[in-house]
Amino acid sequence: MSAKKTWHVAVLPGDGIGPEVIAQATRALDALAEVDSELAIEYDTFDWPSHAWHEAHGESAPADYLERLAGYDAILLGALGDPGPTTDPNRYLLSDSDSLAPLLEIRKGFDQWVCERPVRRLEGAPQYLADPRAADIDMLVIRENSEGEYVNQGGRLAAGTPNEVVTQTAVFTHRATDRIIRHAFEQARMRATSREAEGRVRDFGGKTAQVCLITKRNAQKFWGDMYTEMFAAIAEDYPDVATHHELVDAACMKFVSHPWMFDVVVASNLHGDILTDLAAVLNGGMGVSPSANLNPSDRSRPPMFEPTHGSAPDIAGQNKAGPAAMLLTAAMMLDWMGEEDPAAARAGARLRDAVAADLAAHAGDMRATDAIGDAVVAGVRAGRD
Amino acid sequence: MSAKKTWHVAVLPGDGIGPEVIAQATRALDALAEVDSELAIEYDTFDWPSHAWHEAHGESAPADYLERLAGYDAILLGALGDPGPTTDPNRYLLSDSDSLAPLLEIRKGFDQWVCERPVRRLEGAPQYLADPRAADIDMLVIRENSEGEYVNQGGRLAAGTPNEVVTQTAVFTHRATDRIIRHAFEQARMRATSREAEGRVRDFGGKTAQVCLITKRNAQKFWGDMYTEMFAAIAEDYPDVATHHELVDAACMKFVSHPWMFDVVVASNLHGDILTDLAAVLNGGMGVSPSANLNPSDRSRPPMFEPTHGSAPDIAGQNKAGPAAMLLTAAMMLDWMGEEDPAAARAGARLRDAVAADLAAHAGDMRATDAIGDAVVAGVRAGRD
Ligand SMILES: CC(C)[C@H](C(=O)O)[C@@H](O)C(=O)O
Ligand SMILES: CC(C)[C@H](C(=O)O)[C@@H](O)C(=O)O
Repeated sequence: MSAKKTWHVAVLPGDGIGPEVIAQATRALDALAEVDSELAIEYDTFDWPSHAWHEAHGESAPADYLERLAGYDAILLGALGDPGPTTDPNRYLLSDSDSLAPLLEIRKGFDQWVCERPVRRLEGAPQYLADPRAADIDMLVIRENSEGEYVNQGGRLAAGTPNEVVTQTAVFTHRATDRIIRHAFEQARMRATSREAEGRVRDFGGKTAQVCLITKRNAQKFWGDMYTEMFAAIAEDYPDVATHHELVDAACMKFVSHPWMFDVVVASNLHGDILTDLAAVLNGGMGVSPSANLNPSDRSRPPMFEPTHGSAPDIAGQNKAGPAAMLLTAAMMLDWMGEEDPAAARAGARLRDAVAADLAAHAGDMRATDAIGDAVVAGVRAGRD
Repeated sequence: MSAKKTWHVAVLPGDGIGPEVIAQATRALDALAEVDSELAIEYDTFDWPSHAWHEAHGESAPADYLERLAGYDAILLGALGDPGPTTDPNRYLLSDSDSLAPLLEIRKGFDQWVCERPVRRLEGAPQYLADPRAADIDMLVIRENSEGEYVNQGGRLAAGTPNEVVTQTAVFTHRATDRIIRHAFEQARMRATSREAEGRVRDFGGKTAQVCLITKRNAQKFWGDMYTEMFAAIAEDYPDVATHHELVDAACMKFVSHPWMFDVVVASNLHGDILTDLAAVLNGGMGVSPSANLNPSDRSRPPMFEPTHGSAPDIAGQNKAGPAAMLLTAAMMLDWMGEEDPAAARAGARLRDAVAADLAAHAGDMRATDAIGDAVVAGVRAGRD
């Protein structure tokens, strides 16, 4: 073994409930390092991007914030979006520079081209669906995170007049489509392998894994055709993985009516945005849904880990927000580190177990943010063996 | 009263389960005319658009099909989309002429600029959500049906090569945005009035109706801004209606986690497509979800009524498909006629009552398509008083 690796993490609490939930995550990370001397994580905390920074400086973050984040191994983000005391939600969400939310700037800035939100219900999490098979949901939504409907190209002709015409253009490239679809097939294979190890083999017409492609090709032909053709071509490299296709509207419906049918789902940026939010509900809601924005082709560029939830300004600062999504997000970060660092891999599993145990023991209880943090820290310490 | 009005309806069974479900609808319409001599509906049935027509003629419908439909008062459609024995789902769904599905051609051809899918659960319909409050869902999704993400403009540069770049442009006009948002406010008012008549007043911060605007303005700024600005301006003309705004991803989540919060929801073509499919699940699934494509500004152009479900080729021709969605669709057509014709208004209510009674009596039973048709016809006759 090489010398132990020290991970440098940029911690961005953000605003709203961000600071209070991220505090539980750093406490848990400290506890994990305490119980496993092989684990070394150092962090620097920044008070941007945030509403407060915007109030003080007229921008959500310093002009050079992407450069300042570039040297870190990973970014751990709490929550963004508190528009503060304003009725205009555009005011903060859209940063002044290029009209995109800071979240989108970070994703784009570090070419975090995949957003992953795993869905596997933890016991004790809220269950929105009536069918008991919903307990078996086990899917991974892979969202294209770099282009598509999010390029925000277009314009307003005769803005504000009765003659106004607006265009909004989506741009899709072979390059980004190829990498996201291949990533989906790779993940499907890996998931099938781990299921096999756990003795939970699934069957998709004789194969043990499936990738479902989402498009709206019956109404949006240009990109629908490219996605469909490339999906079919790439699938030939993965004869062991079953393929499936759904139109986005039907997919949303099936996410509610029989989500246990899905394994890996790959979707464009906007479709993925929608489907991952739906997936979060299946998971048990925003309160338990982590997410990762990754650049699997260049590990030197920092990934960003963030809970799926927003900044919930209405309950901010009241020690009421559930930190489970944030803690599971920190576990996803540890998993990612764990691909190189066995101590981080152990820590990820330990943290997830502690959160799961706490959730199962207290399903539905109203507890303070820091009380849950205390319980998870205690769980991490108890799981030290 | 003027002389009784005879309605001329173009009946398009389509393919898959279309013909067998639409047969139940025309039987029910005949029975309604039998029990109420003031009701007069004549129909002509066409075997296009359909897969069979495509097989025989290389097109989904005759070249002049829109002209042939133009003279009818309304179009009643069964289901479209059976791709027959082909593995290429593009083959039939996209008609050869302009790459849009015939459904989209009809909507566009007659400027059916609003698609409406009411959501109010009928007793006995499947319930996908666990929360008992789901029984109280009472919302109407108003979908912009003429432009936006469905204009299918764009192209493929270097198609099929590693250098490929695809653009797909959405176009939004002031004109279409104005009419759809105003329509949503008008519907909200009317719904509040009928709720009041039924003694079911709802409260939205002191107002009795609400319109929720859907955008993705934090990622798609150009059209998001126009929609947001116009929504705020139009809302000033409706001080009695509360307003709300959701991003499309959050809206999808809330449709599952607490759909009973919504009243009228207004959305772009693509967002509306997705939200109406989700709404259909809330309704109890595709099997009970009707829809209407209307041109409220020009009643001389035929509207199209169609169930939300597809053509379900796997069970076609087996006398297995549930006709409830189709029957409720015919009831929506009668409601629309009922805005001018009291006999049609009575018939719409009678048909809906018969379907609701049948559903409540047979929740979950497996019954043949025509057996359900028989029961509804009997219900219509029994309700003759
Ligand atoms: C904040 C917003 C721009 C963002 C997105 O649409 O990507 C969010 O909804 C998400 O999914 O992380
Ligand atoms: C068939 C398809 C083009 C259509 C649409 O997307 O509008 C369908 O999904 C619908 O909602 O009626």
